Amino acid sequence: MTMGQLNTIKLTMVKGLQFTAHDEHGHTMILDTETKIGGFDQGFRPMELLLVSLAGCMSMDIVSIVQKKGGQITSFETTIQGQRAEKHPKRFEKIIVKFICQGNYEREDLLRALELSRDKYCGVSATLRDSPDIEFSI
Amino acid sequence: MTMGQLNTIKLTMVKGLQFTAHDEHGHTMILDTETKIGGFDQGFRPMELLLVSLAGCMSMDIVSIVQKKGGQITSFETTIQGQRAEKHPKRFEKIIVKFICQGNYEREDLLRALELSRDKYCGVSATLRDSPDIEFSI
Repeated sequence: MTMGQLNTIKLTMVKGLQFTAHDEHGHTMILDTETKIGGFDQGFRPMELLLVSLAGCMSMDIVSIVQKKGGQITSFETTIQGQRAEKHPKRFEKIIVKFICQGNYEREDLLRALELSRDKYCGVSATLRDSPDIEFSI
Repeated sequence: MTMGQLNTIKLTMVKGLQFTAHDEHGHTMILDTETKIGGFDQGFRPMELLLVSLAGCMSMDIVSIVQKKGGQITSFETTIQGQRAEKHPKRFEKIIVKFICQGNYEREDLLRALELSRDKYCGVSATLRDSPDIEFSI
């Protein structure tokens, strides 16, 4: 069995519940949470990063596919909303994603790009659909 | 039926496949991808943000729980690795998370904190385990 790529991320506690994350390509970001539970509110929160991840993956797919079909995109905006469960662990029960694309392209190509991302290309969407095995050590 | 919180994120295309994301609390971040597919490699990639999201959620839970039990944590580092499938959509088939915690605390409290995060508190973990409904419009 051949394997796909292995992605590695490292997190380090900074202060309170604030962490920095490092990827393998030299990027760093702060993640944080609300002050009332011990964060400093200086960066994106973990649950909201899940929405950024899904919206980003699909938006990049759609822009890329429409352009490969010869379309010109002048602006692209995505709004993603996650409805949390009321009780712990307050998972996202429902996610609503709205893409607004402007430019010179065939409407049919845009619709097809959304389908292709959702069903074939977006790894975030596929990971949410088909749960990964997760192992922990501490 | 009462509902939980609604989280909203907005993304805007900057150039190529690079986007900025905005949360509801005034934070902004760049997300990007590799140059060979049209990105500028100036920010975290969507699939890797999914790992940041999961590692961040659980790390914050664990630190918070250990401290509530009276433990002192002087350093906390998390390494998360995601093994991608070889073929599209190259979902994460397996995720391995390793937490390294230093300080003055009961080992039993740390192990219990990991269990509580995994099974009861971490919304990212719960969303990965139990897929949300996702609706799209374009």
